[in-house]
Amino acid sequence: MLATMTEPLHCHLDFISPYGYFASLRIEAIAARHGRVVAWHPMLLGVAVMKVMGLKPLMDTPLKGDYVERDVRRYAREHAVPMKRQPRDAVMNPLACGRALAWANRHAPQRAGEVVHAIYGAYWGEGLDLSTPASLEPVVGETIARAAGGEEAAALLRAEVDASLAQGVFGSPTVIVDGEAFWGVDKLEQVERWLERGGW
Amino acid sequence: MLATMTEPLHCHLDFISPYGYFASLRIEAIAARHGRVVAWHPMLLGVAVMKVMGLKPLMDTPLKGDYVERDVRRYAREHAVPMKRQPRDAVMNPLACGRALAWANRHAPQRAGEVVHAIYGAYWGEGLDLSTPASLEPVVGETIARAAGGEEAAALLRAEVDASLAQGVFGSPTVIVDGEAFWGVDKLEQVERWLERGGW
Repeated sequence: MLATMTEPLHCHLDFISPYGYFASLRIEAIAARHGRVVAWHPMLLGVAVMKVMGLKPLMDTPLKGDYVERDVRRYAREHAVPMKRQPRDAVMNPLACGRALAWANRHAPQRAGEVVHAIYGAYWGEGLDLSTPASLEPVVGETIARAAGGEEAAALLRAEVDASLAQGVFGSPTVIVDGEAFWGVDKLEQVERWLERGGW
Repeated sequence: MLATMTEPLHCHLDFISPYGYFASLRIEAIAARHGRVVAWHPMLLGVAVMKVMGLKPLMDTPLKGDYVERDVRRYAREHAVPMKRQPRDAVMNPLACGRALAWANRHAPQRAGEVVHAIYGAYWGEGLDLSTPASLEPVVGETIARAAGGEEAAALLRAEVDASLAQGVFGSPTVIVDGEAFWGVDKLEQVERWLERGGW
């Protein structure tokens, strides 16, 4: 007989998103309190925001860019999150990181969370650039870093991005709980209440 | 000798914003717990979002419109907020309402909160259209409704909108606490923690 199945909390994030970093540090504890695990999904804000939604990048949006810069510092300080990078610093190309996670999801799913934390910690926490498979090697190990440079990882990331868009995901982080989407790290308290109530 | 002065919590909102409605129902209690009062400021998303930020309206943005529709229903249900209008229903022209509040701020500041609650309750709670001074009369009374049709109220609203933009306000609700801006009803818990700590 199968054990009772509980759907994972599906956490969609872009590695260039500081709010995705913030959520990655809290979502596993929330899941664990409710007998869930986290499934990690790489998405690409560049595709969702610019191509599908037709908007400009967050930090290039008048007023909002300034707000986000302040809000990110405030959050990091309140939650004691290590950050050697700020939203207005040069943004890396997130493809190698997204491909590393997409490849891990397929070939080493038990390591996906570790990959997420290693990449976010290195990029936002330590301020490293992780835009190439070689730069990823000290962070996620040789196997995954090398795979991130291959065709299969590229195809797996495209599939993840298509799937996230098909589910309506447009922002990072988006947590999907039994089909219900919550956008933004500010929603994590509501996610927890949703899990406590068991939905509506 | 003057009593100790505490700055009001400055709550910026657009009457067409359901999240502004939601925040209006909680911000006074938060303020009161910390010995503050609320100052209410009409802003115009149409000016901030479209003209200054160069974005399209929220509900016309692919993916995001669908998310907001769902998120608003979910919030209203969780917090038991009366709503006979949904974000995708026809949107009223908010000028008369904004002018009514701007005029009340100048000439009857002690009634500003009452005006905010009356307008939001009628528009979102009861689903009424309040796009003309005449339609406002049963909601805010004859004096304010009539004033909302005049030149002075129009000028006062323009001044409020200019002042909010000069402070970087781009969304509804935005709560400014001693100069620190918090955007979104999801931020109210953080506003409360900020007040408890007395800032950083």
